[in-house]
Amino acid sequence: MSVLDICKAAAEQKYAAGALSTELKNKTLMDLAAALIEDTDVILEANAKDVKRGQEGGMSQALLDRLTLTPARIEGMAEGIRQIAALPDPIGEELFGIKRPNGLLIRQRRVPMGVIGVIYEARPNVTVDVFGLCFKSGNVTIMRGGKDAFDSNKAITATIHRVLSENGLSPDLATMIEDTTHEGVNELMKLREYVDLLIPRGGAGLIRSVVENSTIPVIETGTGNCHVYVDASADIDMALDIIENAKTQRIGVCNACESLVVHKDASEALLKRMKERLDKYNVELRADADAKRILTDVSDATEDDFGREYLDYILSIKTVSSVDEAIEHINKYGTGHSETIITRDYNNGRKFQDQVDAACVYVNASTRFTDGFEFGFGAEIGISTQKLHARGPMGLTALCSTKFVIDGDGQIRG
Amino acid sequence: MSVLDICKAAAEQKYAAGALSTELKNKTLMDLAAALIEDTDVILEANAKDVKRGQEGGMSQALLDRLTLTPARIEGMAEGIRQIAALPDPIGEELFGIKRPNGLLIRQRRVPMGVIGVIYEARPNVTVDVFGLCFKSGNVTIMRGGKDAFDSNKAITATIHRVLSENGLSPDLATMIEDTTHEGVNELMKLREYVDLLIPRGGAGLIRSVVENSTIPVIETGTGNCHVYVDASADIDMALDIIENAKTQRIGVCNACESLVVHKDASEALLKRMKERLDKYNVELRADADAKRILTDVSDATEDDFGREYLDYILSIKTVSSVDEAIEHINKYGTGHSETIITRDYNNGRKFQDQVDAACVYVNASTRFTDGFEFGFGAEIGISTQKLHARGPMGLTALCSTKFVIDGDGQIRG
Repeated sequence: MSVLDICKAAAEQKYAAGALSTELKNKTLMDLAAALIEDTDVILEANAKDVKRGQEGGMSQALLDRLTLTPARIEGMAEGIRQIAALPDPIGEELFGIKRPNGLLIRQRRVPMGVIGVIYEARPNVTVDVFGLCFKSGNVTIMRGGKDAFDSNKAITATIHRVLSENGLSPDLATMIEDTTHEGVNELMKLREYVDLLIPRGGAGLIRSVVENSTIPVIETGTGNCHVYVDASADIDMALDIIENAKTQRIGVCNACESLVVHKDASEALLKRMKERLDKYNVELRADADAKRILTDVSDATEDDFGREYLDYILSIKTVSSVDEAIEHINKYGTGHSETIITRDYNNGRKFQDQVDAACVYVNASTRFTDGFEFGFGAEIGISTQKLHARGPMGLTALCSTKFVIDGDGQIRG
Repeated sequence: MSVLDICKAAAEQKYAAGALSTELKNKTLMDLAAALIEDTDVILEANAKDVKRGQEGGMSQALLDRLTLTPARIEGMAEGIRQIAALPDPIGEELFGIKRPNGLLIRQRRVPMGVIGVIYEARPNVTVDVFGLCFKSGNVTIMRGGKDAFDSNKAITATIHRVLSENGLSPDLATMIEDTTHEGVNELMKLREYVDLLIPRGGAGLIRSVVENSTIPVIETGTGNCHVYVDASADIDMALDIIENAKTQRIGVCNACESLVVHKDASEALLKRMKERLDKYNVELRADADAKRILTDVSDATEDDFGREYLDYILSIKTVSSVDEAIEHINKYGTGHSETIITRDYNNGRKFQDQVDAACVYVNASTRFTDGFEFGFGAEIGISTQKLHARGPMGLTALCSTKFVIDGDGQIRG
């Protein structure tokens, strides 16, 4: 099937998807969780082909690790689907209702977005997550995974199709685009007539390309150049725990800390102890001139460092003279993802939350909490770093739109 | 100033705009209302230049009418600004707050979008509306009006700047792009680094061009191919009143009715009486074969007619055999704006509201109510026909984003 035909077929399922009962959606998801376990061998066999191709093509160990499935990882995918089944159905909820002076009753109702296309890279588990979230929120899914995970995605899609069919549902509710060329993705990005929303998940290059080329509305996800700011009045022990956690607890994720901003009055108490803590993980420190007066044997932080999302065991250090300077630095170099201040000063905490322009602004906590599960939304389809529609962790409701339904008894406008 | 410089200067005012007190915003708006009245002569003089250029250039009477200002129209603009001043400030409202099991307190707070660019055509009053709505919602405004209203927009912007300055505020809070070339607007559409949201207001061509070329997130407004569906069980008198109102009460607006869909069992009772009512306004009827058996002397409706937003005294007529066929027709040809069913049948009313995919779906009322004022939102910046971020009439809250603010006491992720 061509990309155009896939999108047309998806659009034709829009009303059917939106009208599915919560019961049938949940049963289908629970069946899928069971089917993924049943099909473990088939999925692993397909995955082995992808892994082999990756090894032969010289794929990096980090990417190979993200690509490789195991029985435990498949069980993790199934558990994610069970959790989505357990979440409340967002469709049909009424968000607002008023009776106008002329008697019109106006209600705002949550409805599916329609057809959602997701463009992603090498992790095959994304196929399952994306389908689960879109299906539960009454949407039709178009999955365009990267060519590195082609065989795995195809096997997983076959399992999804079998479960849909066993529940009397059309396979067009979730279609994998098998054309993994650039032309294929470019064609998809222009099919605004059939696709209501496009979500790119992956590296900065992929996201930029979709933002620049899509005529379909896009939600930008991901890039996180997150800062920990240690204020003059910070509890240094708390600061050390939070820096260690935000920098090292998981390294390749968008809510990890990439840069430390430190008040000059806290540097002395903080930096040497911090270096000891981070040395355990071989974190490379890149410091500005002020910080290098204390940490004499680390490398220099350049302008370029302050703008980098390392996703690695590297931390840049910037020294400031006030919370205002910290806020200015963070607003200049940050990507609007997650930022935290460690402070005992009430006014500085408040100012930081008010003035830092990011999806999630913390006081005295690790940036690593920016996550749909941690926020209590259940699963997430990504973390939006744009301001339109959704900002921060996106759960089921971020995949929905609204409509106004209005009841009258003959009202006309005067 | 170049387009780039304007956008950079606007972005620098983002935090200042967001931090303005409600009191100062409202005072500035009330001052602007007074200043528009005071400056009436200057504005009318500038407007006369635009009108003269339009007449010399052979501008249509309809466009000249939209371009021409009068003292009464300037008073109308001032009154719009007073109404915006009276609306509640959307900024700072908290939409959600929970305490997580680990003690993190997560709150979602409404914040400004940042820098909003609005691209519009010949009506100079849009300059005032756009500034008022963006300013009240804590945003920086970039106004890019059409060249036909250049002198009027410049005079109005001068009044806005004087009032900003008298209130100690930067003129960069609201800048008019004086470059009215295509190159200028193309440059604007790519400045995603500085502009957070772009709203095109105007004809279908302008909107399509912005949607296709902008890398900045866009809200699509406007096009309305709205239907009135008269069901088999309709109260025919009510149907006649609603059709007359939706078709003729104001002709050039996006919530006017462009097409009648009629159940075959209602045609006989409806169509001849409807023609009598619409003949008073010289409405041209374009009917399908079934309807032409009753209305023998009207022209044929082609496939093309069903997809048209006439914005004129023309009405297409489509006959159907069921509410399902009506819904299918409307979902196929409609633009997702406003649709209404006239019925006495409870199930058909409910089905229509559930299955018609549009921003506003009415039972037994005119489509003309789709409007920020009529919905009780106060002023509106447009009517969104897309599903992302805002759908239907967009008031102040549609110009806002959110941020999560999270308070902890040292939480780290395990």
